[in-house]
Amino acid sequence: MNVTLRGRTQHFRTVTFDAARNSVLLIEQRLLPHEFRVVAMRDFRETAGAIRDMIVRGAGAIGATAAYGLAQGARAFRGKDPEKFSAHVENVFQVLKSARPTAVDPVNAMKDVLREMARGETIAEKQSLALAAAEEFANEDARHCEAIGRHGQKLIRSGSRVLTHCNAGWLAFVDVGSATAPMYAAQAAGKKFHVWCDETRPRSQGATLTAWELAQQKISHQIIADNAAGHLMQRGKIDLVIVGSDRTLGRTGEVTNKIGTYTKAVLAARHKIPFYVAIPLSTIDWNLKSGFEIPIEERSESEVLGAWGVVEHPKSFGRAYVRVANPASGACNPGFDVTPAELITGIITPAGIFKPGELWKHRRKLGFSN
Amino acid sequence: MNVTLRGRTQHFRTVTFDAARNSVLLIEQRLLPHEFRVVAMRDFRETAGAIRDMIVRGAGAIGATAAYGLAQGARAFRGKDPEKFSAHVENVFQVLKSARPTAVDPVNAMKDVLREMARGETIAEKQSLALAAAEEFANEDARHCEAIGRHGQKLIRSGSRVLTHCNAGWLAFVDVGSATAPMYAAQAAGKKFHVWCDETRPRSQGATLTAWELAQQKISHQIIADNAAGHLMQRGKIDLVIVGSDRTLGRTGEVTNKIGTYTKAVLAARHKIPFYVAIPLSTIDWNLKSGFEIPIEERSESEVLGAWGVVEHPKSFGRAYVRVANPASGACNPGFDVTPAELITGIITPAGIFKPGELWKHRRKLGFSN
Repeated sequence: MNVTLRGRTQHFRTVTFDAARNSVLLIEQRLLPHEFRVVAMRDFRETAGAIRDMIVRGAGAIGATAAYGLAQGARAFRGKDPEKFSAHVENVFQVLKSARPTAVDPVNAMKDVLREMARGETIAEKQSLALAAAEEFANEDARHCEAIGRHGQKLIRSGSRVLTHCNAGWLAFVDVGSATAPMYAAQAAGKKFHVWCDETRPRSQGATLTAWELAQQKISHQIIADNAAGHLMQRGKIDLVIVGSDRTLGRTGEVTNKIGTYTKAVLAARHKIPFYVAIPLSTIDWNLKSGFEIPIEERSESEVLGAWGVVEHPKSFGRAYVRVANPASGACNPGFDVTPAELITGIITPAGIFKPGELWKHRRKLGFSN
Repeated sequence: MNVTLRGRTQHFRTVTFDAARNSVLLIEQRLLPHEFRVVAMRDFRETAGAIRDMIVRGAGAIGATAAYGLAQGARAFRGKDPEKFSAHVENVFQVLKSARPTAVDPVNAMKDVLREMARGETIAEKQSLALAAAEEFANEDARHCEAIGRHGQKLIRSGSRVLTHCNAGWLAFVDVGSATAPMYAAQAAGKKFHVWCDETRPRSQGATLTAWELAQQKISHQIIADNAAGHLMQRGKIDLVIVGSDRTLGRTGEVTNKIGTYTKAVLAARHKIPFYVAIPLSTIDWNLKSGFEIPIEERSESEVLGAWGVVEHPKSFGRAYVRVANPASGACNPGFDVTPAELITGIITPAGIFKPGELWKHRRKLGFSN
């Protein structure tokens, strides 16, 4: 999507590949929203480090990064022995996989690349096919998000006031994003609307990443405290809610997403405001039978007890963590929650918009091959 | 309530009076939770400044501070001319009133003091009656909070997990607090329970003030992001909600309180969790006929766009504001919301616990004299 640097607007993807330098190029997301910088990962170990240290985050984005990283590693092989090449590629795969051991997207993305590589006969052919497969993975991620946008933009009218939570934007994918895709498509269709951007404590991805995206894209928006949406709904100031999802149960329509999503769904239901979830197909889990089977990650107390930001002080030294809370108190910090299907108006997918209870019926269309 | 300083536990009130030095003693609340300090206001202008600059905040606490400030000003008069004394007292009243021009508590408290003073004949008598009236105002505030505790503690059982929002604690009153009163009384009755303490963005009074109070009182508690309560309710981890109120409509039972209160009430209703509001009588508004008549204060954007805390950095310079949000984005910051009576299980008052819809029926008991 668009980024304006020194007055000049350019198009960027979260992840791209520089074939001449065999480098993965990433937006350094830890510096956002305070600084925009593209960094080059010059070998697969650096690429794995970027995934581990969260220079890049978000399901689609780390999938594409791992796919490019595998191609990068394969292309760096200089020998002629096919067995040594295979062992090398296996090592690259393991190093990239272990960067975020619980994430499924990097593994699925790299399996796509390995499958394509198997079609080559020579090492050179395999290297070439690896890069083509990684490019195709990234392009497909962007196409899927664009399709979410095409379907979802119909929900937004000129004058709509749309609430979103956390960051399910283009920074979490290769481009366009999931929850943001309908907004970008509606803007492209000439509609004027306003976005309420939940701060999304404790990590504040709404106030930092989503607000940055919307500002770059010149979409009207305001950040609100997570506490404020209920009041705005009560006063008739929210017309539509669109959020993303980390895992959606194909059998039940339950949605796991950033902590606080469930609360917004409960409020929307009370006020009869449509509540939509935008998802790429890769986040559908066709196995689990209940949201209560999903383990909810307990994250660090320090996220709740303080905040990261840029210090506004004459002696400022830039970005810092401030301890907000009482020093003698602890915190409880569940990272995600589960929203039941009954509170969800529809799931926006690349294949269309479906009722949450009907994902299973449409599972073929949604890429479930069993 | 209790504060432990250098290993020694002492009892403190938010506001007290040093008659020998004619000084109002206040806990410097802007330094909490990072530092505990009692500061002396040596004349009524300093006392007015403390109210204006929010060294002291909270309805009961600023009421008592103004009452003491009026007595302090009256006692500082050194002449013998009754007319000059009256003019002086009127000036003291106006200076203290203008410190927080929209607050009703200081004015009501000072009218109590003036009424008592009118019973004296000499200047010396009036000065003496002023201090006695201010002391009585402070004592009554504390007694009312204790009565809220006596009624409300029955709702808390050993093992209960209680959610509270913002700070309706003893720091907002002379002592004991409103929403915290049932907790302190339950603890005194030997019950063991756990408090979930909402962070309460954007000003974080839960993470700072309420958590500090509970820690000083050695009550088991954890701070949670405002986003987390819905998830905890869904997983059966909250048994009871108790919050305070800035204004309660006597005719409808609607409750105005810190932004986010309404959201907690909606969640509690969905999960059939009792939702109680603890109030001193002074916050009941017997005139308004609808919560929609209550103007909702729009507060500064900077509260939402950043956070105050102590910088954790080798070169730290102590308390500072950090900008968290995207620098090019604005915010919307409503300070309060209105919770309808249908979502409130009961209102805990010094005179007992009432259904929100029955306040009007019990208005005599609740101090409404019309």
